[in-house]
Amino acid sequence: MKTMVGNVDMDGADALRGALARGLRLYVVTDRELAKGRLEEEVVTQAIAGGATAIQFRAKNWDARRMVEVGLRLREITRDTGVLYIVNDRVDVAMAVEADGVHLGQEDFPVPLARKLLGPDKIIGLTVYNASQATAAELLGVDYLGTAAVFPTGTKSYADVAPLGLPGLVSIVRATRLPVVAIGGISKANAADVLSTGVAGVAVVSAVVAADNIEGAARELREIVDKCQQQTGP
Amino acid sequence: MKTMVGNVDMDGADALRGALARGLRLYVVTDRELAKGRLEEEVVTQAIAGGATAIQFRAKNWDARRMVEVGLRLREITRDTGVLYIVNDRVDVAMAVEADGVHLGQEDFPVPLARKLLGPDKIIGLTVYNASQATAAELLGVDYLGTAAVFPTGTKSYADVAPLGLPGLVSIVRATRLPVVAIGGISKANAADVLSTGVAGVAVVSAVVAADNIEGAARELREIVDKCQQQTGP
Repeated sequence: MKTMVGNVDMDGADALRGALARGLRLYVVTDRELAKGRLEEEVVTQAIAGGATAIQFRAKNWDARRMVEVGLRLREITRDTGVLYIVNDRVDVAMAVEADGVHLGQEDFPVPLARKLLGPDKIIGLTVYNASQATAAELLGVDYLGTAAVFPTGTKSYADVAPLGLPGLVSIVRATRLPVVAIGGISKANAADVLSTGVAGVAVVSAVVAADNIEGAARELREIVDKCQQQTGP
Repeated sequence: MKTMVGNVDMDGADALRGALARGLRLYVVTDRELAKGRLEEEVVTQAIAGGATAIQFRAKNWDARRMVEVGLRLREITRDTGVLYIVNDRVDVAMAVEADGVHLGQEDFPVPLARKLLGPDKIIGLTVYNASQATAAELLGVDYLGTAAVFPTGTKSYADVAPLGLPGLVSIVRATRLPVVAIGGISKANAADVLSTGVAGVAVVSAVVAADNIEGAARELREIVDKCQQQTGP
């Protein structure tokens, strides 16, 4: 039976969330400093070959010009792969490179204004630190949630607050119907525990970007995700 | 007689450039560090009271959220004043706060993509360092030019290359039909010399923003501009 809430067909909304959730299963975030001299193009190509379902192009403190140039190349690499292509922080760069969406932090662009600029069809992700931010995000029109670091991490941008731990992650997942992608210190050693909380997927930086074999590292993580979620396929 | 170049009615284009040039006569750039604890809202209000014709909201390295919040307040302050309101660097912030335009550096957002996002009616300014960049800028669809620092300056963002000097400024002005606003070390002591080069106006940071009496400092500069250009009025 269909449930109508306002003008929203909840079956349709649920279907969209389900499709997005599948796109978040293995979410790889770029980081030039961790990539051992390899450019984003190489990192992203190998991560996709290994089974990444989403790429976030993250380039804090880069000039906008360089971000647009690299961002356009990543759009070409991700186009027609079925992999979600998300740009971190800069709404204008996301628009210029025709990314699938933008990921915002609590200190980044306000979500309602980002939605106004991006229109209804682009994906907006928001980092939340706790359950009350997760609940609030749904009302803002966010499509998916990222989290504060679950475990201690060496990736400095995610190390600014105390790790959530698995209980903290569970409280976020329970507070929202939005798909949640967990980040922070996730590796093949703990990915199954993270996935047991009901998250849509795991986001990684160093576990893939800093690996000697990026494709192999992505493949190992993707296999864990598929096993935990008992689903496979592209 | 009208001169048609392609589809462009040159009389119309000249008229638009003339109107924009008048808006660039006294162009005040905000800088939190130089403002002696005064917020942008206060600085901008006083600068406009003193006769600023354009305000550039410049907030390098700020979080986007804070930039949008302050930027929206500056939009309210500048609305209906006839003063141009330009946002530095971030095209998305300029769009979100409904600024009149954006000012880009050579390392900022590429001009053609900024134009695509902003549409034909918003103003795009570009910083140029020499005559060849000035000539190139016209083809990119830029509306006005800023310059590298004319004189040595303590405002660190403009101190990264050797000062142009007045001869360098003249070479830029002669290389383009676009209105040029000169910046870098300009004060009431040298503003008349700068204006003698044929620039549309002078841009200042510390000469106004760091003054004890912001309104008075703006007024003194505006009087020099009006005297040199032998025109007055709002």
